[in-house]
Parts: sequence; structure tokens; C-alpha cells
Amino acid sequence: MRDFRHDHSALALNTATLGHNVPSVGAGWSPEQTIDACAERGIGGIVFWRREIEGRAAEIGDRARQAGVQVVGLCRTPFLVGPLGLQSEEAILSDFRQSIDQTAALGTDVLTIVVGGVETGTKGVAHSLDIVADRMAKAIPYAEACGVKLALEPLHPAYAGDRSCLTTTRDALDLCDLLASDSVGVAIDIYHVWWDTDLPRQLARAGNRILGFHLCDWLVPTTDILLDRGMMGDGVADLRGIRREVEAAGYSGFCEVEIFSANNWWKRHPADVLDTMVERFRTVC
Amino acid sequence: MRDFRHDHSALALNTATLGHNVPSVGAGWSPEQTIDACAERGIGGIVFWRREIEGRAAEIGDRARQAGVQVVGLCRTPFLVGPLGLQSEEAILSDFRQSIDQTAALGTDVLTIVVGGVETGTKGVAHSLDIVADRMAKAIPYAEACGVKLALEPLHPAYAGDRSCLTTTRDALDLCDLLASDSVGVAIDIYHVWWDTDLPRQLARAGNRILGFHLCDWLVPTTDILLDRGMMGDGVADLRGIRREVEAAGYSGFCEVEIFSANNWWKRHPADVLDTMVERFRTVC
Repeated sequence: MRDFRHDHSALALNTATLGHNVPSVGAGWSPEQTIDACAERGIGGIVFWRREIEGRAAEIGDRARQAGVQVVGLCRTPFLVGPLGLQSEEAILSDFRQSIDQTAALGTDVLTIVVGGVETGTKGVAHSLDIVADRMAKAIPYAEACGVKLALEPLHPAYAGDRSCLTTTRDALDLCDLLASDSVGVAIDIYHVWWDTDLPRQLARAGNRILGFHLCDWLVPTTDILLDRGMMGDGVADLRGIRREVEAAGYSGFCEVEIFSANNWWKRHPADVLDTMVERFRTVC
Repeated sequence: MRDFRHDHSALALNTATLGHNVPSVGAGWSPEQTIDACAERGIGGIVFWRREIEGRAAEIGDRARQAGVQVVGLCRTPFLVGPLGLQSEEAILSDFRQSIDQTAALGTDVLTIVVGGVETGTKGVAHSLDIVADRMAKAIPYAEACGVKLALEPLHPAYAGDRSCLTTTRDALDLCDLLASDSVGVAIDIYHVWWDTDLPRQLARAGNRILGFHLCDWLVPTTDILLDRGMMGDGVADLRGIRREVEAAGYSGFCEVEIFSANNWWKRHPADVLDTMVERFRTVC
């Protein structure tokens, strides 16, 4: 298991942690300012969201690399199914290809997938998972041609209805098995999987298919299921135990901090959030 | 699979559905009034909460039977672990025995268990589940002596931190296997398990250990993770598919409607809620 106490170069910022989607916060930092703030602190990696790099992917990717910050991945494909998605399969697949293009343009190779919830008018997750598999299969050849890896992220079962009918690491790996492409793997996010007693077995099964590892914490109480994630150490997730298993499976990549926190961290100055993130990464992760 | 289109005698009311814990609603119905309202509508069973029968368990149980309504079970033991529980193991076990006494006094034989969340000061669910197993083992002889069956209810993973470190049917059955008592089984609640692709396999494994089956629905969106459960048919859970599997496992008992709904059903007149419950049970369950 890696020792981060004196080296946080494996730490990456997911820009959502700075409240990217709340215009009044994030101190109005541009992608360039965020890159510089990471570089100043020795944060080794960064993950952007599409809205932040729209039309400037190559430029921002180059800027990060010049600053010594690796672009670790891009968030994310459109929902592939469910009530919050685009209206037609054609529109979904077109936007999926566009997100693959943006990932490649950014000069990174991992694109995160949040698959979407239960297809409107249907019941249960099984049919929606079938649709996801079908649409993934249609997009994979393009991803392979572009050298982009697709990281299926199982989301917490609280989101099964609207955001992700894919809720467990087991289901994500089953889907990987079905799709049988070296360009498809999984992203493991503490917030979504910390409660799962099957996780150790599934991480061992995942092996080199773990394409991303996301840090945060599960607060007690959690006051908002979407926007009340905790900073590492403030909750009840076994961060170190899960990281041990992720690394035992062979993962040696970045640890990406992704904290949606409307009433706490998004209200603080981004510089303070980054400082806390570094400190917690060194002490509790 | 049973046909409920013309017969809803297998329908049971969990009194929580009428907003039992909101004094201003529930139209102030006493247990007797609730029993009569069920009897009038041919609702065959009722499940009370402890606060409703405190000191009057035997009397209320008799009253229900006289009205032709079966008392299906009692909600519930104290939390056995975690931040919302009683302060000492002694207090927990004492209250556990008291809940067993009340179940027996009520003249029913199923007591529901919500195990509680992650023990304060610890990380992850594993240690807390060990405490649950230990405290269950200490209470089982008393339950056996009283002829009371203990129904472990896995709760949705959204509650893993505070209310139930036991989140899946798999974990509940693993705990049953460990405890190895004919007096221990599981309660399957649609709200908590609908998202789980492993459910069919686990229900088949459960066999005759299914002691309760709870109906409601998962709304999209769910605006409050605790108090926004849906009436059957209003959400995306595959009610009929799950009931088919529950019955295929051998379950032939009551279907208990338990809907926590602060902003919708708890605001309606209880008579209307019961009427809707009967209609939905016949048409969509």
C-alpha cells in the first residue's frame, strides 16, 4: 500500500470539489487558475467536466501539462438511458462520441460514464441495464479508435431511479465482462460503494480494470443525498481499507477527490478547500 | 403467483402509512379506529409500532382479532448498534427483550429488526455488523422461549451510516446463516431492495426464511430519502416481478404496505389513503 504521508503527488482534484456548477462560488476561477492552484500545492492531477473545457480542450490540456499537472480524466458521457437523458438514441450516441473526442483532445485517456436511471415507462433496473449495454457496444469501436478508455462508475443505489441503474461494482464488472473490450473498465468512488460488503471480492475480481479511484467520505447524517458529501476523514467510510483493496487489485493511479457539498465545501474559498484536501489526503487516506 | 385482483385479504397495513409519527395527521385515529377502518375495507392484516400499543398490547391484539384483522407483526426492536441507539449494550438488550415481550403480548409472532448504523468512532460496516451478530445471539434464546420470530430487515444503502449497516438481502441471509436459529429470518421491503440485481438469487436462497414482505414504491425523483416513499404504482420498482420471486421462494403471507410520506400521503385523510392502498394492491401489485 502506498504511503502518502510525505508525498501527495498521486492526489488529483476533480473540479466538482470546488463547486464548479455553482457560478457564485469557485471564486470564479478559470480552468487555468485551478490548474495553477493545483500546481502550487503539488497536487499531481486534475479532472475536468465537459462544460469547463468546451471548445478549449486541447489548450487546457496543454496548459495543465505545462504546469506539471496531469489531466487524469474527463467527466463525463451523457446519461445513456433514463429520465434525465437526451431524447433519442441518436442524440445520446452523438453526444457520447463528442465526449470521446473531447477526452482525446484534452490529451487524457479516461472518460467517466454515469449510465442514467430507469428508462421512463419501465419498471426495475434490468431492462435499462440492457439498453446501457447496447449503447455501450455501439460506442466502443469509436472509443477504441480514439484511444479512450471508458470507466463505468457504479453510483450509490440512492440514484438508481434517476441517475444510475448501475449501482454496484459487481454489476459494473458484469457489464465489462459482457462488453469484452480492453477499453472498458470501472471507476470506484468511495461515496457510492463504501457500504457494500461485497466490495473486497469485486475489487479483487476487477484487477487491472480499475480505471479511476475517487475519494470523499460519507457523512452521518447526510443531509442531502446529492450535494452533501464529506471531506475525507469527516465520515464513516473506511477510506484506508478500501484503498488497500483497490491497490491490492493492481491500481497505482491517481486518487481523485470529488466532493459535491453545496452547504459546506462549496461555500469556502477554493484555496482553503485545496489545502484541506492535501492535509486530509496525507493524514487519513 | 397469487391473484389479488379480486381478493385483497392478503393486504396488511403498516400504521406508519397513515403518518403515525406525525401527531397532527393520522386524523388522530386510535389503534381501535385504525383496526375498524381496516376491517371495513377487508384489509386482512395490521402491523403496529411499539409507541402505539405501549401498555395495551394484549388489549389491542384482541381487539384486532375480534374485528377480523390479523396482527401481522410489530415494529420494531431498538437499534442494536450505531449513533441513533441507546447508550449501553445493557440498555439495548433490555429494550430488545421488552420488544419481544410486546410482540408476544400482542399475540403475533414477528418482530422486525432495524439493526442501526455504523458504531460511533468506527469506519465501514464490518465491525458494526459483528456487534449486531453478537447482540442478536444474546437475544435469540429469549425470543425462542417467547415464540417470537425475528425479521432482519436490510435497509437501503442510503441509511448505512445512521440506521442500518445491514443493507442487502445477501448480508441479511449471511447473518441468518451465522446465527443458525429457526427464529431468525428476513423482511423484504421493496423500497430498500428494488435496485439490487442480486435480489432474485438471494430470494431463492432465502426460502422459508422470508418472514415479511413490504410494499411501497420508489419515486423518481425521490425528494426526501427518508420520508418520500411512493404508493404502489407511482414509482419505478418492479413490484410484480419482486413479488413473483418472493412467492416462488415459498412466501404466502401478508403483503404489508409501509409508506413514509411526509408531504403527500401523510397529508391526506387516512380513509382515502386506505382506499387508494386497496385499489393499487388489486391493480398494480
